[in-house]
Amino acid sequence: MSTANVSNLQESLAASDPIQQNTQSSKTALSGAGLRGQSAGETALCTVGKTGTGLTYRGYDITDLAQHAQFEEVAHLLLRGHLPNSLELENYLQQLKSLRGLPQALIAALELIPANAHPMDVMRTGCSILGNLEMEEDFSQQLDATERMLALFPAIICYWYRFSHDGVRIETDDQTEDSIGGYFLKMLTDKPSTELQRQVMHCSLVLYAEHEFNASTFTARVCASTLSDIHSCITAAIGTLRGPLHGGANEAAMAMIEQWHSTQQAEHELMNMLANKEKVMGFGHAIYRESDPRNALIKHWSKVLSESVGDSHLYAVSERVEAVMKREKNLFCNADFFHASAYHFLDIPTKLFTPIFVMSRLTGWAAHVFEQRANNRIIRPSADYVGPEHQQWLPIEQRP
Amino acid sequence: MSTANVSNLQESLAASDPIQQNTQSSKTALSGAGLRGQSAGETALCTVGKTGTGLTYRGYDITDLAQHAQFEEVAHLLLRGHLPNSLELENYLQQLKSLRGLPQALIAALELIPANAHPMDVMRTGCSILGNLEMEEDFSQQLDATERMLALFPAIICYWYRFSHDGVRIETDDQTEDSIGGYFLKMLTDKPSTELQRQVMHCSLVLYAEHEFNASTFTARVCASTLSDIHSCITAAIGTLRGPLHGGANEAAMAMIEQWHSTQQAEHELMNMLANKEKVMGFGHAIYRESDPRNALIKHWSKVLSESVGDSHLYAVSERVEAVMKREKNLFCNADFFHASAYHFLDIPTKLFTPIFVMSRLTGWAAHVFEQRANNRIIRPSADYVGPEHQQWLPIEQRP
Repeated sequence: MSTANVSNLQESLAASDPIQQNTQSSKTALSGAGLRGQSAGETALCTVGKTGTGLTYRGYDITDLAQHAQFEEVAHLLLRGHLPNSLELENYLQQLKSLRGLPQALIAALELIPANAHPMDVMRTGCSILGNLEMEEDFSQQLDATERMLALFPAIICYWYRFSHDGVRIETDDQTEDSIGGYFLKMLTDKPSTELQRQVMHCSLVLYAEHEFNASTFTARVCASTLSDIHSCITAAIGTLRGPLHGGANEAAMAMIEQWHSTQQAEHELMNMLANKEKVMGFGHAIYRESDPRNALIKHWSKVLSESVGDSHLYAVSERVEAVMKREKNLFCNADFFHASAYHFLDIPTKLFTPIFVMSRLTGWAAHVFEQRANNRIIRPSADYVGPEHQQWLPIEQRP
Repeated sequence: MSTANVSNLQESLAASDPIQQNTQSSKTALSGAGLRGQSAGETALCTVGKTGTGLTYRGYDITDLAQHAQFEEVAHLLLRGHLPNSLELENYLQQLKSLRGLPQALIAALELIPANAHPMDVMRTGCSILGNLEMEEDFSQQLDATERMLALFPAIICYWYRFSHDGVRIETDDQTEDSIGGYFLKMLTDKPSTELQRQVMHCSLVLYAEHEFNASTFTARVCASTLSDIHSCITAAIGTLRGPLHGGANEAAMAMIEQWHSTQQAEHELMNMLANKEKVMGFGHAIYRESDPRNALIKHWSKVLSESVGDSHLYAVSERVEAVMKREKNLFCNADFFHASAYHFLDIPTKLFTPIFVMSRLTGWAAHVFEQRANNRIIRPSADYVGPEHQQWLPIEQRP
């Protein structure tokens, strides 16, 4: 859904946005109110808002991981259960690199998708097609199938983007970049990534990798609970992340801040937005109450990149927006807000921001699918019926 | 997942199959146990196990609908809110017929999918690609987008099937059949449907159209709750229905009964299966306690078809299996069991049984998406954390 359409959804957002409702106790959620605060299962993968700075992956604090780990270390942690040692990481990087080439039929399908398609539809479709070409026949293949997706997802989005927008057929079986983040930037720009760019991509991909029972992850688990295949689960999760109440906040934040060319203008226009009760994306959170631990981590890199690229105003505008939102609304930046400027400084087109989220969150989704499968019961809740009582059948010729 | 793989999943099934657990009170379900008996929202579309014979669509009893209504009447009821009068139905049939031609890019993509792909992967991918070509830009397009899918889904599966299996490119923009069921049979066989065949397809599609918060419908609602587009919601639902704990029971039943050529053999082999604690698909239900109201309705048509096609044993074998399961296990046939023989008598290949379910359930899924959007809150439950407490970060060179 485009940014323009997001603004058409203000009314729905007002009724449904978790941020609007985050003053409610998370434990008093009523049935039907989005299952907020209700447990839908167990996980050993993640805590949100519980210990440390508020976010842990398998017990490790997000700050340690985002400051010190490569994304592939975190992928290994989530998918294989532990942080790799040096030899394991080296082997893992080699293995993932070897899986990068797109199958020919997938290339041909991507070339059929027009340039005006939604990039998340391309990701969803690319994943779904892959399931036809390389089906997970048995759950013993779940790790292989996931790591193939981990290697291919940057190629799927970049191949479609470069072909449909630039008319260029890129060679995706490229092993010059060790990291997934570096490979993505190389596929997108044809240029080798810099050390700084890779560091930022590691941090970003680590921050987006996992977040407990968010809507897209929960979708993956409901799908997995019928014992469906891994490509169905990930396809379903991508489709869920596509919604503007879930993914896309960093794109919406970018669309907002790129209009403003000074801190004064930003403050003035933002105050007008707030006066008009317009939604400001990238602030507040359904679960975090005082801050999002991911914000400081990506904000650091946005600042470093700003200085590196000679940015004249975008980082300053972003900081001003943060300050005004705190002062006026007591709302804090979530993970998405400074991702907007950081990605922009990496020369990533705004429409590809949410597909990067997919490249990362795939690890969390798949780890949840593995967990669901290991101790499964089909997820099948009940509903409160609010429809008409017994309706008398009338033959069609007697109907009004 | 093929039938062979289903048998590899016996252990998971024993732990997760709703039928194994249907003696538990539906109201005492604990968190994490698949949300069984927990309300996840409101619906005006359907009751299961509450009134009348146990299944109603918008207050109408399933027996009335399945005995008297065309499928398109029920689609109109679910999607547009009321049963059509004669003029409305005539217009609706004309409209749906006019939407049958597959877009050229979708045809080209279907031709890329190999014959050994899973037919549900083809459905999922066909729906996903359609979302790229004919995006739902705004929720005001939700009904048009759904009715386009309603018209196209039979063409998607038949085009791929005929091209990949027979090397034939069918002409999908065919308006010689008024009904969706008749059109499906025509696309599959090149022959005009008979009155009897159309009657059976109407009954079958009506029976599968809607079933409250089953796993695939719940997936569609979770996806919709992020305000994602309709193609994402339906794609996610298809992927969820693909799992052998949800769709596919009629295929598994067919794989079982087609091995048996007499009632004596059926009873003997079935008793062996039960002695070996093997799973028998098509029996029992997570919610219905004494019978599935859909069984008698499709069983009637299986019997009529059996006589019509000169069947020597398959219907008799099916009845014997029903009797033995009742006698030995006190389990009743659900909607799927007699669908197996009925579809077989219609010359439908077994691997296309679950895609027919999709052609029908699309109406229920979409009606739930509309309902979720009209009163939305993002569906984001919580999880019980069962993982490790705080883990100390170790630099990679210090890891064991």
